[in-house]
Amino acid sequence: MTTQSIDPRTGKTFGPQLEDSDETQVRRACSDAERAGSVWGPLAPDRRAAVLETLADALDAQSDRLVLLADSETALGAARLTGELARTTFQIRMMADAVRAGSYTGPLVDEAVAGAPPAGHPEIRRLLVPLGPVAVYAASNFPFAFSVAGGDTASALAAGCTVVVKAHPGHPQTSEEVHGVLREALVSEGLPEGVIGMVRGFDAGSQLIQDPAIRAGAFTGSQRGGRALFDLAGGRPDPVPFYGELGSVNPVVVLPSAVARHDLPRDYVDSLLMGAGQFCTNPSLLFVPAGSSLVDAIVAEIATRSAGVLLYPGVVEHLESSVDRVASATGVEVLAGSRHHEAADGDNSLSRSPLLFGVKAAELLRDRTPLDTECFGPVGVVAQYETMAELLAVLATLDGALAGCVHGDADDGDARAVVAAVAERVGRVVWNGWPTGVGVNRAQHHGGPWPATTSPLHTSVGVTAIRRFLRPVAFQSVPAELLPVAAAGPESNPNLID
Amino acid sequence: MTTQSIDPRTGKTFGPQLEDSDETQVRRACSDAERAGSVWGPLAPDRRAAVLETLADALDAQSDRLVLLADSETALGAARLTGELARTTFQIRMMADAVRAGSYTGPLVDEAVAGAPPAGHPEIRRLLVPLGPVAVYAASNFPFAFSVAGGDTASALAAGCTVVVKAHPGHPQTSEEVHGVLREALVSEGLPEGVIGMVRGFDAGSQLIQDPAIRAGAFTGSQRGGRALFDLAGGRPDPVPFYGELGSVNPVVVLPSAVARHDLPRDYVDSLLMGAGQFCTNPSLLFVPAGSSLVDAIVAEIATRSAGVLLYPGVVEHLESSVDRVASATGVEVLAGSRHHEAADGDNSLSRSPLLFGVKAAELLRDRTPLDTECFGPVGVVAQYETMAELLAVLATLDGALAGCVHGDADDGDARAVVAAVAERVGRVVWNGWPTGVGVNRAQHHGGPWPATTSPLHTSVGVTAIRRFLRPVAFQSVPAELLPVAAAGPESNPNLID
Repeated sequence: MTTQSIDPRTGKTFGPQLEDSDETQVRRACSDAERAGSVWGPLAPDRRAAVLETLADALDAQSDRLVLLADSETALGAARLTGELARTTFQIRMMADAVRAGSYTGPLVDEAVAGAPPAGHPEIRRLLVPLGPVAVYAASNFPFAFSVAGGDTASALAAGCTVVVKAHPGHPQTSEEVHGVLREALVSEGLPEGVIGMVRGFDAGSQLIQDPAIRAGAFTGSQRGGRALFDLAGGRPDPVPFYGELGSVNPVVVLPSAVARHDLPRDYVDSLLMGAGQFCTNPSLLFVPAGSSLVDAIVAEIATRSAGVLLYPGVVEHLESSVDRVASATGVEVLAGSRHHEAADGDNSLSRSPLLFGVKAAELLRDRTPLDTECFGPVGVVAQYETMAELLAVLATLDGALAGCVHGDADDGDARAVVAAVAERVGRVVWNGWPTGVGVNRAQHHGGPWPATTSPLHTSVGVTAIRRFLRPVAFQSVPAELLPVAAAGPESNPNLID
Repeated sequence: MTTQSIDPRTGKTFGPQLEDSDETQVRRACSDAERAGSVWGPLAPDRRAAVLETLADALDAQSDRLVLLADSETALGAARLTGELARTTFQIRMMADAVRAGSYTGPLVDEAVAGAPPAGHPEIRRLLVPLGPVAVYAASNFPFAFSVAGGDTASALAAGCTVVVKAHPGHPQTSEEVHGVLREALVSEGLPEGVIGMVRGFDAGSQLIQDPAIRAGAFTGSQRGGRALFDLAGGRPDPVPFYGELGSVNPVVVLPSAVARHDLPRDYVDSLLMGAGQFCTNPSLLFVPAGSSLVDAIVAEIATRSAGVLLYPGVVEHLESSVDRVASATGVEVLAGSRHHEAADGDNSLSRSPLLFGVKAAELLRDRTPLDTECFGPVGVVAQYETMAELLAVLATLDGALAGCVHGDADDGDARAVVAAVAERVGRVVWNGWPTGVGVNRAQHHGGPWPATTSPLHTSVGVTAIRRFLRPVAFQSVPAELLPVAAAGPESNPNLID
């Protein structure tokens, strides 16, 4: 099997035919990663941080070339892709800062306590050590930030783990080029290329998570793909953790106290159609008070917007089947746009126009299809609720999601209950804002209950993403000079975060 | 099906026939736990800590009665069981202290940063919230500390989760009585009994981890049982985390610099035979320099020791098959004791005499059976190594284990490499000590790579055990008065640990 780039704007293939990795190549990438781990894992924190910064600098230096190539493969546009690459290198540098600060390398120490147990105990010095080589599955919709040099790779490297990336077929040349930049930077630092390996192809991806050298998996993509890999990771003779971010149907609630805000229709549609709607944080399920003029205003706003170009043919296919599913649900009607794409003669582009469904919130209690069908693309569902009790009843049945938003006034008597109901089902609650645009910072959490992720304890964005790739070891009465890892100070680490 | 107590000293059954929980009862326990969660989860930290202390006080008040009953079902002896109950209540109080200190309830806050992304971002306040009802599977060998009121229950409650315990059939009456004490204490505090539910029976255990209300599982027991439940947890339509501690073959290395220490044979045999060898931290694999007199001294020491009484018939059966497996491995010989138990007429007790196998370390590279066969009982394997290279080669092939020990002088030139090799394979490294006796403290780690546990990131002993039952939620620009959980201060939590 081979992979070739497709220009989403024309539907035409271009560039080299890239061969899938065969079994031998996958095995070699994993054993290279394992061998490289004996160099990368024990590096002193300062040195590891410096190498991460070298990787970021090398990517920034190639920004123009990489953005141009990624745009030709994804049609996401130069502005967005320039921003995304900046986000990617910002993220790598944030991880470098965390490594230098010792956010995860410092010890947690209990000094010895004299006397009999349970109060008495010997000295225990708990350190977090690298888990081992990590399989990183790149996403289609972020060719930089959730791909070869993305957050999973950055946090695994920060933890002291080496990485084997499974490249996404939606941007094969960009993956090659980014990987080339990283590899050269590693070599320039005197490090083995095996610190960041890469494989291509569907079968290679399945083999990768089952390779004996791999100690964890990290994935951003579809629910079907993520679940299949999660099952393979858990089904190994020696199961390994698998951190999958599988996308979600993100709820946004407009409370009566916010319904008259003039910016709402425009801001909602901006968020809904950003990147042609191809965000896992897309605000795809909007709850509005029944009978408000908001729905008409949104429909009018949608009518001013043009089609967006989807990433690759698989996205188009998946979107069409999701749209059919939602359309078939009880009480669902089309509010704006058309379910059927009619292309002009000779237009083979992957462009699709915005589509908005409407439904009464009460119907969702009878037929939950719109609640569990992610429409990955420029498609939204507006649900009109009659009463607060009805709204809360529907919110309680939501699938787990990455983000949820509430628009209202803080002194709205219902606001606290609605925020609480949303928090029960999501990993991030946004007040008077939109779910797209996940800030890269220390406290960020990009995760959530199943099916948003396979692992509700962990995030794929923010400094705490590092924790996914570390395991604790307690050193009992071990003299400092015999500790096998850096950061052997007697003090507990004041920077340690969770 | 019913369960009845067995006196391990006589092999005779006694006490009531306790019915297994049926499907309806398991479902009800789970829905009770879910409903109780809406009371227990939002409790203010001070109040939750106070209730935990009430539970500990109630158990301490019944110590004499509970110890007597547990001894009749386990034959572990009054001294050990009195200590174990003290450990159990100490552990609950330690969790209460952590709740009060806000070790996991405080926010991690990134203030808003003005400007465009990636540097600019809105305020993010990350809080850890309870995961939901937890299924706790009790262990046979710790009727208090890893059972109904044990570490898994204590840490789940501390996290704000309710619990449904699957009682262990090896001590059915003790489980009933402990549960009764906890239930009464909850009621005295005005809390629903559903905060700590309990079910009985093998099928009930399988149903429990698959119940829709259950959000996580915690287990201490055999590799076979733990793996089966892990597979059920991961195979759910909505997979849930499963924290299994499956026991292990714990390595102990005696370096040449320690071989002449006079206390070694006695201390080793003490640790090996403690609790009739029924500890998951049993030092079952001892590496000694070939040709040293240590082996003879150990054999002489073993000869002075009497038989130990095993917990229940399942342990005897499992031990016999493990012993047969190890005995059949290449190069394994019996150094002390006999493989075959010969009981006196009329002796139906579950007592078994100590047994020691010997093998050349080099043989373990050819036949690894002794490395992956846990003999849960008074059985050890002594492996003699010829060279440091040979020792390191064998250590690199060890299964993941809970603990590993190294005996030597700190200035022994090989000590650092051996400590590092052991640390690669275990969750706790002990210097010049023994693996049995896991201290209950903040930095403790009782875990390790597969097959020691199903989840190498987490511990079942120590304060960080709480983290298993919490999930992060990021609150973006949410006003403090709308936060659904306690600890809404503007400051990041200085106590937060990982």
